[in-house]
Order: sequence, then structure tokens, then C-alpha cells
Amino acid sequence: MIAERIYLDWNATTPLLPEAREAVLRGLDQFGNPNSVHGEGRAVRAAIEAARRQVGALVGAEASHVIFTSGATEASNLVLTPQFRMGRTPLAIGRLYVSAIEHPAIREGGRFGAESVAEVPVTAAGVVDLAALEAQLSSHDREAGMAMVAIMLVNNETGIVQPVREAAEIVRRFGGLLVVDAVQAAGRLALDIDELGADFLVLSSHKIGGPKGAGALVSRGEVLMPKPLVRGGGQEKGHRSGTEAVPAILGFGAAAQIAAAELEARNDAIARLRNRLEDGMRLAAPDVIIHGANGPRVANTCFFTLPDLKSETGQIAFDLEGIALSAGSACSSGKVGESHVLVAMGQDPKLGALRFSLGPTTTEGDIDRALIAFGKIAGRRKHAGQAA
Amino acid sequence: MIAERIYLDWNATTPLLPEAREAVLRGLDQFGNPNSVHGEGRAVRAAIEAARRQVGALVGAEASHVIFTSGATEASNLVLTPQFRMGRTPLAIGRLYVSAIEHPAIREGGRFGAESVAEVPVTAAGVVDLAALEAQLSSHDREAGMAMVAIMLVNNETGIVQPVREAAEIVRRFGGLLVVDAVQAAGRLALDIDELGADFLVLSSHKIGGPKGAGALVSRGEVLMPKPLVRGGGQEKGHRSGTEAVPAILGFGAAAQIAAAELEARNDAIARLRNRLEDGMRLAAPDVIIHGANGPRVANTCFFTLPDLKSETGQIAFDLEGIALSAGSACSSGKVGESHVLVAMGQDPKLGALRFSLGPTTTEGDIDRALIAFGKIAGRRKHAGQAA
Repeated sequence: MIAERIYLDWNATTPLLPEAREAVLRGLDQFGNPNSVHGEGRAVRAAIEAARRQVGALVGAEASHVIFTSGATEASNLVLTPQFRMGRTPLAIGRLYVSAIEHPAIREGGRFGAESVAEVPVTAAGVVDLAALEAQLSSHDREAGMAMVAIMLVNNETGIVQPVREAAEIVRRFGGLLVVDAVQAAGRLALDIDELGADFLVLSSHKIGGPKGAGALVSRGEVLMPKPLVRGGGQEKGHRSGTEAVPAILGFGAAAQIAAAELEARNDAIARLRNRLEDGMRLAAPDVIIHGANGPRVANTCFFTLPDLKSETGQIAFDLEGIALSAGSACSSGKVGESHVLVAMGQDPKLGALRFSLGPTTTEGDIDRALIAFGKIAGRRKHAGQAA
Repeated sequence: MIAERIYLDWNATTPLLPEAREAVLRGLDQFGNPNSVHGEGRAVRAAIEAARRQVGALVGAEASHVIFTSGATEASNLVLTPQFRMGRTPLAIGRLYVSAIEHPAIREGGRFGAESVAEVPVTAAGVVDLAALEAQLSSHDREAGMAMVAIMLVNNETGIVQPVREAAEIVRRFGGLLVVDAVQAAGRLALDIDELGADFLVLSSHKIGGPKGAGALVSRGEVLMPKPLVRGGGQEKGHRSGTEAVPAILGFGAAAQIAAAELEARNDAIARLRNRLEDGMRLAAPDVIIHGANGPRVANTCFFTLPDLKSETGQIAFDLEGIALSAGSACSSGKVGESHVLVAMGQDPKLGALRFSLGPTTTEGDIDRALIAFGKIAGRRKHAGQAA
């Protein structure tokens, strides 16, 4: 008998929601080019604009402030540029300040040169150090242009919620721009771009039950905008050229609608399962370290270290037990490096860490299976007296 | 009775092939992140690599030389940059020479500043002027860096095949790089990147029966590569970051395989229909001008001018008759501008032009309906004595 596999890697990517699947299929069949003026084209255009309203509604933004991209990485690269425009007037961004725990899509700095990117440290609790941010912005050289600050709302590895509202006040005080990677927050926290005080939000479809291949850059207004990254036919009001990825965009819209509507019911159920999981883990291995357990975390993420278990070894061991989990972020293929998040938190990255991340269809049975595997792997580690 | 609509705008976008639809569905259901090391992730990775082989095979390139992007526009922006690398050594491109009939995705010049882009003229026959190209490259300032030349293989508006092989010899002689937009050539001409002499080819999924949301930059080698446009997690060997658009990529692969396998059979049938269409058009309106009719054209495209019919008016009139056609390229929404291709050919763009473009599922019945509509619209124009 082969047991069904258990998927506990929802922060890497999510199974497609049935509603999103339906929307993708509509997008596959509505084959016109949304930029054609004939009937076929206009029907596709209307469908894209409906998806734009759905994505805008997820974050309390006007539909007209949503720019569709191929994903969150492209959206990040679009907004992270020293070249902005205020209406028609060029406006320079002098320096980019990124938190030390940002996703590589932000950390790489987009179109900023490495010399124009500064890192904002985080505390041992895995939270952006606001005092350090304030000190950095105090000594920002305004001659070279505005400051841009990028702070994610929820860290992808730890699930720790970052103090974005407080950061926004600081950034505003210094006349800077705030970019918020909300990829892991969407569908897990109620989002409102104005309330957050963000100038730009970055979103991803496939992290909220939509298909891979769509994301968005959402802006608070329309006046202050980045120089386009992808130029050509002038789609997305000139902010992002290229024929729209219609099936993925329609799926993204449907997923955004579900994420907005079912947020609370989902989170309560997921939090209960995650807490059961962590209680069981602590029972099975009292030495387990659950990162960020004492601070504000989203309900679905459990980032942990089992002393004397390498994260590569652990990942393979869980995979063999039929459980998909991750050693931090799923980025470039096969790259199992040290976690820059652990390093930023002042932990020894050699310890390694693994991440369970749950989703709306995670069941009690999945948690049972995960705990059995966890007990086996944790126990084997001890019995073998194995060292890292 | 409502007659079925006739789609004759295949150069704008194509209906999805059944095989591509199947592949997209597989990509929707295989939900792992291709960059995860667990079983789910590895299965998706294998599927992407199979698609990469299919796309490579379409253009005679090694799979490892295919970089997947969100579409041809992104692929163009990736390759059109003054910043290249030869292995690890930076290498500057001093100037970009684009033909006057390139698609906006190329004409906009990607990451080149406007001052570093020069235009290569075309002849009245709609063909790139090779003597002019040679003269331009002779006076290229090599101090500022290499020359890059971008010439499309098939023009999207006229269907005219460009002398890329000859251009490649000239470019090679001057030590430059040749970028070939093969978007409208794929599936219509046999393609081999080496035989063409192109250093880079740009491809699009949704122009060959695949879904929207995928494209590729194919390189002849791996040594000389552009600075990445989208940076982050390091996917696509670092050339293009972001979680891969799995459903669209698998659909693109399937479409590429069909395009390669069915090329000849398709083209013969399409050419017969297109020739019947044009013969009928000439009978119904002897004053019709069919652009490029006397030179090498792909089999599916008919770009024409009906004197005294504005292209906007014509497009709407055909749409009302149930026929989707286009006034040139389908780019930014609602933009019905003058055709830069007609201008480049020295024609009066005020004349306007319309484009029928056929595909593998176009039928004799479709051509009948198109000819009836054409006759009506051409006739009405005369009877009304209407001026442009």
C-alpha cells in the first residue's frame, strides 16, 4: 500500500483552487488577444479587467492601481529601480534599504546597483529593527534622491509578521517610499494598502491558490511610478508591455476573490492544526527549536530546527516518508544553501532549519502523518547519536 | 440565426491547440514548485525540462540554450541590453540597430537608451535594406562596444520574410551580434538557429497554438549572455528569476512540438486558402493593394489596403460581419495608430491597411464568409462614394 503524499509546503506554492482552475479554463478558451478591437479581443479585455478588480479588492486598492506581471519576482524588479517618474517628471531614488530577511526577488535589488542597496537588520526575534531603520534614514543622503525601503509583511521562511505600519510611519517621516512584499501575507492577513501605509505592494498568484505565471504590482496612487521594466506594445497603461497571460491572470483573480472572502474561517482552522503540530513536535523532541514561536506569526507556518539534523538530510528523510516540506525558500533549482533569514536573526545557520507550511485543505490526518514522520526522524537522529 | 464567428487574426494570437490544452492541464495539476527538492517539485522540474527540449527542437537549438520567459516581449527586453557578459567578463554593446519594421517589443530598444538605437531602413518592397545595414555597420564606432542588430524573420503585419541569413553574414563580418524575432516565423517556416546565423532567437507560445504567458529567448551558445532583466531566486540558470509559469511552459512545449511536426502539411493547405482569398479580393475590388504580394511571404498573411476605407472603419465593419481581423499589430489596448510598417515601406500611412491572417483550422467556409464580407464592405465603400 502506498500512502498518499502529504503536502506541507504551501509557502513554496499552493495547489490550485477549483475556482481558479475554472477561471484558467475560461482564459484558455477565450482565445482573443485582449488588445484587439474585435469582439473576441473585447471579451478577453473585459475578463482581465474583472480579474483586476478582484486583485485590487484583496488589498483595498483601486483596480486601476493594479499592474499585472508574470509574478512577484517581476513585480519586485519593476518597482525596485532608481528611475521613477512623478507624472512626466523624472524622479531619482537615491538608495534602496532592504530588510535582511527579504526574499531574493527583493534582496537582489532589482535595477539598483549593489552600491546603492543597504541592508536593514532584524532583531534576534526575526523582526525588522525599526530603530536601525530610523537611524539609517536619518543619515540618508537626499541629494542623491529619495529613499526607498522594502520590508516584507510576512517572512516566507519563519512566517513572522513584520511591523510594516510602524515602518511606514518612519519612512513617511523621511519622505521615502515603502515597498511591501505581501506575497506570504495575502490570504493569511487582512490587507489594505492605505492602512498599511505602503506605496507599493507585491503579490503572487500561485501562493494564494492561483496558477503560476501571474503576479501584480499594486500602487497606492498613479502619479509616482517606476520606469517600466518590460517595454514594447504599451500594455498595462505602458507600465508593463507584452500580451497579457490571460489564463493565469483570470486564475489569479478568482484566487484573490476566494482569499479575501474566506480569510477568517481558513485561518482559525489552520491555526488549530499548526498548534497541534507544534505541540506534538515539542512532545516528540523537546529540544526542537520553533523559530518565531513567541512573536506574531501567520497561522500556517512552522519553521523549526532539530539539533543534529542537517536540513538537507531532514528534507530528504521527510520526502521518503511521503511528506513534502521545505528547507526555507524554494528558489533556484537544487540550491540548498544556508538560510539568510537564520543568519539575519543571529542564529548559527549551520544548525539548519526546516519549514512545515499548511494550507486550507490540510487535514487532521495530514498532521497525524507529519507527526509520525517527525517522531521517527527525530528519534532516529537521537538513537544513532548522529552529529550534524 | 447567428452565424458563427470567423477568426482571421492568427498573427495577433492563436486558438489553443488541443495538445497544448492537455499540457496546460497537466501543469495545473502538477502543483509542486519546480525548485523544491521533494518529489512534487522534482516531477514539475522534469516536465519543464521536457518542454525545454521541445522548444529547443523547434529551432534546432540545444535545450540548455532555451531560457523561458513570460513571453516574447520579455525575451526581447532580456536580450536588448548594452550590458552583456562573456563568461564572467563584462562586455559592452555600443549600439543597437533595429529594422524599421520590428515589433514594438524590439523597436522600443529594451534597456538601450534612445540615443543608442539606430534604425535600419527597409525597401519599398518591405524588406530590410541590406546595403543600408552594411553602410551603418561600416561606420559603427567599435570603441563604444559591439554592434547589436535586430531583424525579425517574418514581419507581423505584412508576413514578408526578411533576408536574415544575408543579414547574419554582414553582421558577422563586422563582429556584431544578431537578434532575430522569430515570433511570426515559428510554425510557418522551418527554423534552425545555426543555419539562420542568429545569435539569439525570440519566440512566443501564443502565436503557435500555445497559451499566453510563455515565451523564450534561445541563444546559439552559452558564453555570451545578456545581463538578467528579472533578478531574484536565480531560476533559469540565473538568466531569469521567478517561479516558472509551469502550465504555460508545458503548453508552449506541446505547441512547439506540433509546430515542428506539422509545418509542411499545414502550410500547403493555408497557402491554398490564402491564395483563394486574395484572388477573390482582387475580383471583388480590383483596386485593392495587397502589400508584399510579389515577394517572399509566409503562407498565412494577407495585409491589404482598400482605398477610401479607413482601417478603423474597416475593422469595425468586418467585426460586425462576424469576422475578426486586425489593422496591423494588436498592441496597446485600443491604440489604432498608423502602421509604422507602411511608413517604413514609404507608403502613405493615411491609406490604412487591414490584415487577414489564417491558421491551421481555417476552412474553405471561413474564406467564403470572409470574401462575402469583403465584397459587401468594398462595395459599400464605392456605392457611397465615401472618402477616407
